[in-house]
Amino acid sequence: MAKNKSNYRKTAHLFEMISHTAAGVNAPDGSAQKQAQKQLDNLTKPQGSLGRLEELAKQIASIKGVINPDFSKKLVIVMAADHGVVDEGVSAYPREVTPQMVYNFLSGGAGINVLAKHAGADVVIVDVGVASDLDISPQQLKSAAGSPSPAGMFISRKIAYGTQNMAKGPAMSKEQACRAIEAGISVAKEMISEGYGIIGTGDMGIGNTTASSAIASCVCGVDAALVTGYGTGINESGLENKIRIIRKAIELNSPDANDGIDVLSKIGGFEIGGIAGVILGCASTKTPVVIDGFISGAGALIAELICPECRNYMIASHASVEKGHRIMLEKLKLKPLFDFDMRLGEGTGAAIGISIADAAMKVLNGMATFKEAKVSQKK
Amino acid sequence: MAKNKSNYRKTAHLFEMISHTAAGVNAPDGSAQKQAQKQLDNLTKPQGSLGRLEELAKQIASIKGVINPDFSKKLVIVMAADHGVVDEGVSAYPREVTPQMVYNFLSGGAGINVLAKHAGADVVIVDVGVASDLDISPQQLKSAAGSPSPAGMFISRKIAYGTQNMAKGPAMSKEQACRAIEAGISVAKEMISEGYGIIGTGDMGIGNTTASSAIASCVCGVDAALVTGYGTGINESGLENKIRIIRKAIELNSPDANDGIDVLSKIGGFEIGGIAGVILGCASTKTPVVIDGFISGAGALIAELICPECRNYMIASHASVEKGHRIMLEKLKLKPLFDFDMRLGEGTGAAIGISIADAAMKVLNGMATFKEAKVSQKK
Repeated sequence: MAKNKSNYRKTAHLFEMISHTAAGVNAPDGSAQKQAQKQLDNLTKPQGSLGRLEELAKQIASIKGVINPDFSKKLVIVMAADHGVVDEGVSAYPREVTPQMVYNFLSGGAGINVLAKHAGADVVIVDVGVASDLDISPQQLKSAAGSPSPAGMFISRKIAYGTQNMAKGPAMSKEQACRAIEAGISVAKEMISEGYGIIGTGDMGIGNTTASSAIASCVCGVDAALVTGYGTGINESGLENKIRIIRKAIELNSPDANDGIDVLSKIGGFEIGGIAGVILGCASTKTPVVIDGFISGAGALIAELICPECRNYMIASHASVEKGHRIMLEKLKLKPLFDFDMRLGEGTGAAIGISIADAAMKVLNGMATFKEAKVSQKK
Repeated sequence: MAKNKSNYRKTAHLFEMISHTAAGVNAPDGSAQKQAQKQLDNLTKPQGSLGRLEELAKQIASIKGVINPDFSKKLVIVMAADHGVVDEGVSAYPREVTPQMVYNFLSGGAGINVLAKHAGADVVIVDVGVASDLDISPQQLKSAAGSPSPAGMFISRKIAYGTQNMAKGPAMSKEQACRAIEAGISVAKEMISEGYGIIGTGDMGIGNTTASSAIASCVCGVDAALVTGYGTGINESGLENKIRIIRKAIELNSPDANDGIDVLSKIGGFEIGGIAGVILGCASTKTPVVIDGFISGAGALIAELICPECRNYMIASHASVEKGHRIMLEKLKLKPLFDFDMRLGEGTGAAIGISIADAAMKVLNGMATFKEAKVSQKK
């Protein structure tokens, strides 16, 4: 009983911190958006002819409150955690792949390392719930000095050794759900305070398409079959089992589809909570956040339930192959920038999205005006 | 008569050169493609999970004949020319914008400068038929040493001061059509010999959506109304006039839809011929060529008529807003990488496409294998 009371107090404190962050999310700056539009219309091109690059530049200007924000430091935050539900045979890969991939991120060999580097972005890996003790060298820890390792930096915010099996009970406690979100908020704010001007979300966690499909089914109010896909590559009978397990978990736990923390705690994952937190942290500090694919979409749904204004700060990068992603994006009223038939996660789509956002801001600030270039305007 | 004979000989010589180039286009290297597939399947990601990036990497490996080609030098070639058909009031901008934009390219203020720089690509502008004498400084001329100017390099291959008005007769002579294609071939080959590993196509020419729509209508066998759009921004009555002029030009000139040089000469443009030549030059030297939007699509249709094997070397960058572009791409059996609602031309879509192709090759060559990273494979 004494422990429960202490837990309640801790949870109440975390709730308050999250509510406080959500309350700090303001509407984007309409005047900066207008200024961006005016500038775009003066540049040497037919008005609107750079399409979505122009839309993106305006959105980012409205988020930042200025038309020429500093984008010299860009970042992808990869949230890593394990899932108890893998005991139900929902994934094509064994659980040990989660820590193995964390090491791969840290030595620079993963897809996200290559694509983040291409985009000029650093990578930080946050352990919010990997189901084993990781052997991290001091050089790989993110230093307070903020100088990124050539591959990935590491931050430990481990909440538990993976979630519980949601087919048998809630994936985590309310306190743990709040702690996962808090981890995302504080990591995002810390990195933004070190000068990162745009952040992409990413994930690693064997079993996390199952949790994400469960969240999509619950929050978007559709049957699991409509939002459950093959993940890393299960077969047809594996898919049937996955759908059955998701339906069972939702029925057993009855998450409240309007309560992000309730949904996260009952059928979510620590990395999904971490991603929701990153989004809240970005939105509350006027930082554009580039959303990766399906798992990040689940995090975005949780963030949007906690703070609907968050979505103004989101940039949807790609449309994932994973079934259900489009339903998520519709719910979030986001239009993805591109569709490369990708389904890797890690933030790989977000990294490409960051590169496109960077290009959009270079258009806004790097092109000559009709006047400067002495080019005649439309007849 | 003597002049006609001399013209005939000159044209025959040019025909031969183009045929020779076309005959030199071989099928891509199937073994390099297989090697790329094998490598991709060993990388630390579920097989195929990087979707179109993997497809692109395989295509480029098959074009280059190796899985790790040198992409350190990348280039966008912008073909510039004027169009006699602007006399019919088909464009929203005055003709003087063509040379003005060439100067803008050379001082680095245009969309293509910003986006090529973002992609790490140089820009070269080729005057194949601007309707005025350009005042180019020696520093802006592409030097034999090949060191690119910080903005754009300039090459003069001027064939004439703009095309003739296709609503009153053929846009150019057969000889001129051949010379435009030859200019593209030789510029592409020259740049490739200087180490450029991937080339994007671009255009500048007030009135060139009219010529491109005419080519699309003729080659794809559809009515002008289905492939004619607003270009740089004409209004509804302007669109009606544009469609009428295109129908008239096709009826008057009766181009042979199976003969690329005939189509180009009767209803084309010098820059469209130049783009067709760039594609032929790339294909004949195993160089991937990234196709921009609508005008470059018209050039691709001409190149494909001359040498159907060319299309294996083409990478379609974006789907243009311009009506008819999708019909062109269907005819070419190309699937664009992205759709940003763009309609600027200049090679802006190709520049972004080059960046994506670059990312694809970094994935193929920069990621760790399962064995290297000690990551467990699928169960």
